[in-house]
Amino acid sequence: MSNGWFDHLKRDFVQGFPAYCGFRVKRVEHGLFEASVTLRPDHRQQDGFVHAGVIATLADHTAGYAAFTTITDAFRILTVEFKINYLRPAAGDTVVCRGKVIKPGKRIIVSESEVYAGCGSAGSGSAQTLVAKAMVTLTAVPVDSLKGPGP
Amino acid sequence: MSNGWFDHLKRDFVQGFPAYCGFRVKRVEHGLFEASVTLRPDHRQQDGFVHAGVIATLADHTAGYAAFTTITDAFRILTVEFKINYLRPAAGDTVVCRGKVIKPGKRIIVSESEVYAGCGSAGSGSAQTLVAKAMVTLTAVPVDSLKGPGP
Amino acid sequence: MSNGWFDHLKRDFVQGFPAYCGFRVKRVEHGLFEASVTLRPDHRQQDGFVHAGVIATLADHTAGYAAFTTITDAFRILTVEFKINYLRPAAGDTVVCRGKVIKPGKRIIVSESEVYAGCGSAGSGSAQTLVAKAMVTLTAVPVDSLKGPGP
Amino acid sequence: MSNGWFDHLKRDFVQGFPAYCGFRVKRVEHGLFEASVTLRPDHRQQDGFVHAGVIATLADHTAGYAAFTTITDAFRILTVEFKINYLRPAAGDTVVCRGKVIKPGKRIIVSESEVYAGCGSAGSGSAQTLVAKAMVTLTAVPVDSLKGPGP
Repeated sequence: MSNGWFDHLKRDFVQGFPAYCGFRVKRVEHGLFEASVTLRPDHRQQDGFVHAGVIATLADHTAGYAAFTTITDAFRILTVEFKINYLRPAAGDTVVCRGKVIKPGKRIIVSESEVYAGCGSAGSGSAQTLVAKAMVTLTAVPVDSLKGPGP
Repeated sequence: MSNGWFDHLKRDFVQGFPAYCGFRVKRVEHGLFEASVTLRPDHRQQDGFVHAGVIATLADHTAGYAAFTTITDAFRILTVEFKINYLRPAAGDTVVCRGKVIKPGKRIIVSESEVYAGCGSAGSGSAQTLVAKAMVTLTAVPVDSLKGPGP
Repeated sequence: MSNGWFDHLKRDFVQGFPAYCGFRVKRVEHGLFEASVTLRPDHRQQDGFVHAGVIATLADHTAGYAAFTTITDAFRILTVEFKINYLRPAAGDTVVCRGKVIKPGKRIIVSESEVYAGCGSAGSGSAQTLVAKAMVTLTAVPVDSLKGPGP
Repeated sequence: MSNGWFDHLKRDFVQGFPAYCGFRVKRVEHGLFEASVTLRPDHRQQDGFVHAGVIATLADHTAGYAAFTTITDAFRILTVEFKINYLRPAAGDTVVCRGKVIKPGKRIIVSESEVYAGCGSAGSGSAQTLVAKAMVTLTAVPVDSLKGPGP
């Protein structure tokens, strides 16, 4: 896997809904993808906490791109299903997600996402709090077989 | 449960992230909540399909409000965890979600969400396609015990 | 799909661990499989309730055979993952499981299992109690590609 | 937490269905429980692989006892739900499960189980293969509030 592929994934990650949500790439390695989001008022739910959907979207998207790092550009990654546990309320101004492939594969790939919340130097230290964890089942499908509805 | 409570939930549903995503309430009954979203370019992912995160957010949020219809205003609903399967790509311009309580409870409530995609008269007929299904575990916590980080 | 295939599945269902657990086939249709178990002391856990593992095994196995009804004998069904919610304690002497395909497919099939508990005429009437529900992701793999470790 | 509590849990673990399945305790620490099973023909499924239900039962039961190590004997642990991914076929003669609490709590506890398969010196070395991983949501309920159907 060349650095060119990782650079492509960094740009590819931030489009459409993830761009709208303000997600940013932090780190990319083989089997690993790390992303973050600086919290805004429109990420909240009715009671002021970060909405579960923001965290789920970040967990799914990052897990998918961790899977992307293990394949070539002849394939696309689709989410088959995921499960996420919310462990603690997300406090602070930043949420960081670390997606990791726990089972590579030709057809079926399994990733985990750990989501941390904290302040300022988000993701940089031991003070970060684990707020959610997801297990994500993905499938690699040949690009040729995919027909999206257009952009 | 009075109609006043359902009216409150209809307003409460559309705040913060769900409002930002353009979710709208369609129908509220005891143990049932139905919501929809008209798709916009910023709901898409890199390949033109609706992002899994939009569908997960709608499924979780609607399942939670289905749970809300079974409790009183002395409690709040939090998502403990959910699992969602993506069954088919979501085509069309509208996504509709039907959340239903399958196990009411004092502490732990379980809801299901079925997500349909289609065109125009979304959610109105048999032509709608089931694109995702979620099982959501929720907990009812006394309002007194909750301290959100503020709006 | 011939009745011969369904007859084969009825026999195939009750081998190894499922036979050891006392599972029995009740009904087979295209996309549907129904099985039951008469509870024995060795199905219990430390506090006298039916062990979650008995119910999970029944839910997974029945969901898998529901998937088998939609394919040919050139394929085998493997469980990719499943999620199960325990809704109520299982009381009575019989547990019945209804497995249903909610998304057929060439590679990935999704089934649901609903598990009911009750007495005597188990599964026959409205008096049965829903005690658990599972969503199961399965994959159909060509028989040729499978090498089991032997019986 | 005294060693007496851990000794009690070691005995408590091996009753009813888990005893019937041949599960054995390997190690107990605060927030951690490790168990194993030596594979028998009646653990297999129709194609010779270890049945998914054996692995699910071991994963659920061990995750529950990891939770037990973090509470007192005034409470019992019940499984709310779990999700398990099957990563590779389980080959060899022994299966080992490591259950770990990832979120302690008064009411809701979340554990993870990693299941390994291998030969002979099962669980002792790096040669072990990760065959499944589960996330398990548990609830601690006061013993007083529980009425089991009797042994």
